[in-house]
Amino acid sequence: MSFALVPGNTLITATPEEGRQLAFKLARLSIKATQPDDAIRGKLRDVYAQDPAMLMAAGHTVAIEFATIAAANHYWRGRE
Amino acid sequence: MSFALVPGNTLITATPEEGRQLAFKLARLSIKATQPDDAIRGKLRDVYAQDPAMLMAAGHTVAIEFATIAAANHYWRGRE
Amino acid sequence: MSFALVPGNTLITATPEEGRQLAFKLARLSIKATQPDDAIRGKLRDVYAQDPAMLMAAGHTVAIEFATIAAANHYWRGRE
Amino acid sequence: MSFALVPGNTLITATPEEGRQLAFKLARLSIKATQPDDAIRGKLRDVYAQDPAMLMAAGHTVAIEFATIAAANHYWRGRE
Amino acid sequence: MSFALVPGNTLITATPEEGRQLAFKLARLSIKATQPDDAIRGKLRDVYAQDPAMLMAAGHTVAIEFATIAAANHYWRGRE
Amino acid sequence: MSFALVPGNTLITATPEEGRQLAFKLARLSIKATQPDDAIRGKLRDVYAQDPAMLMAAGHTVAIEFATIAAANHYWRGRE
Repeated sequence: MSFALVPGNTLITATPEEGRQLAFKLARLSIKATQPDDAIRGKLRDVYAQDPAMLMAAGHTVAIEFATIAAANHYWRGRE
Repeated sequence: MSFALVPGNTLITATPEEGRQLAFKLARLSIKATQPDDAIRGKLRDVYAQDPAMLMAAGHTVAIEFATIAAANHYWRGRE
Repeated sequence: MSFALVPGNTLITATPEEGRQLAFKLARLSIKATQPDDAIRGKLRDVYAQDPAMLMAAGHTVAIEFATIAAANHYWRGRE
Repeated sequence: MSFALVPGNTLITATPEEGRQLAFKLARLSIKATQPDDAIRGKLRDVYAQDPAMLMAAGHTVAIEFATIAAANHYWRGRE
Repeated sequence: MSFALVPGNTLITATPEEGRQLAFKLARLSIKATQPDDAIRGKLRDVYAQDPAMLMAAGHTVAIEFATIAAANHYWRGRE
Repeated sequence: MSFALVPGNTLITATPEEGRQLAFKLARLSIKATQPDDAIRGKLRDVYAQDPAMLMAAGHTVAIEFATIAAANHYWRGRE
């Protein structure tokens, strides 16, 4: 593939907020890896952004990606 | 994005109840990140709040978010 | 919200049976948090209690909630 | 409820095979807890046993229950 | 049941490849436990092997079974 | 089967990017194990690459495979 699947090639982030942003990126890059055409993805996005079941499915995958990233960062406990 | 994905930028909460509330917030902010239009989200909410399959899907994602938050807090064991 | 999302505000239970009961409560309270109207929830319950796919979806979420509770309790290993 | 949700009130089993059997029981008792009527459950079972998507959903939940039971038993590593 | 749910009654395998094969077996034996009729399962398989959503659901369950087996084997790290 | 389910027979990778690539491979090889016919898989792929729900389902499974691989590699923390 011509794009990175893990931006920055690391799961380590400074904060939970950045970890959450990474979770979104991983989830979106998975979609892009299967459907690399930007125009088609754009059209599909218009569909699922209006569909509650699909919005939830998207959120579900973000939750799983975030679980991995949070574990990688020891849940950013050291920041407290 | 113009709003925080992780309110307070931490997964650490004082109690399980607050951890559960955070799980709901994370799940809802995921939806908002994909569909930022408040009016559209409001309409979609009217749909899924009447649909048992979607209510369960929402609960499913909350369960996954909560698993991460509970682990981050060592399951609040120290409070016992 | 005017009701607790985590009854007793703890994940610690004396037995696996009580842990499982708590998993059911957490799953049901998630639904209630999204759809607080008792009458609507009652009607939806009549639908999903007759629908095998929805019954399985409900069981699926209970399994995830229970995984968290079981980990919180070190799987109640000390009782053996 | 008038039946146990966790038979034997323990997650500890002697073998992986018994652990797997327990995973099936937990999954089935979840369905029973939501739909206690034996006759209705029997009819629903006839439906889902012929439906590949539902058979997979059932297997999915068993996999999650088993993950918890396997962790509880330290994956039965001591038996090797 | 008249067949083993966990072939060999162990989660321990020599290699990741064998662990993955076991994950497939566990997933398939779950289906068999719910639908023991070989002829019906054969027919259902013809359906789901042509259906992308069901193929993905099958792969999803294999991923969960494999997560458990991989943890049981400490991810086969000692082989490196 | 005549092809490897775990390429290289290891979950250990040098980087998160390679771990993510392995997650995609595992997910795709699961599909191939159930539907070994390349022509049929090609046709199904044309379907699901245009379907947002299926693209999300594919991403969901990748997320689960990646969670296992990331844990196997201690989240590549030593590289930081």
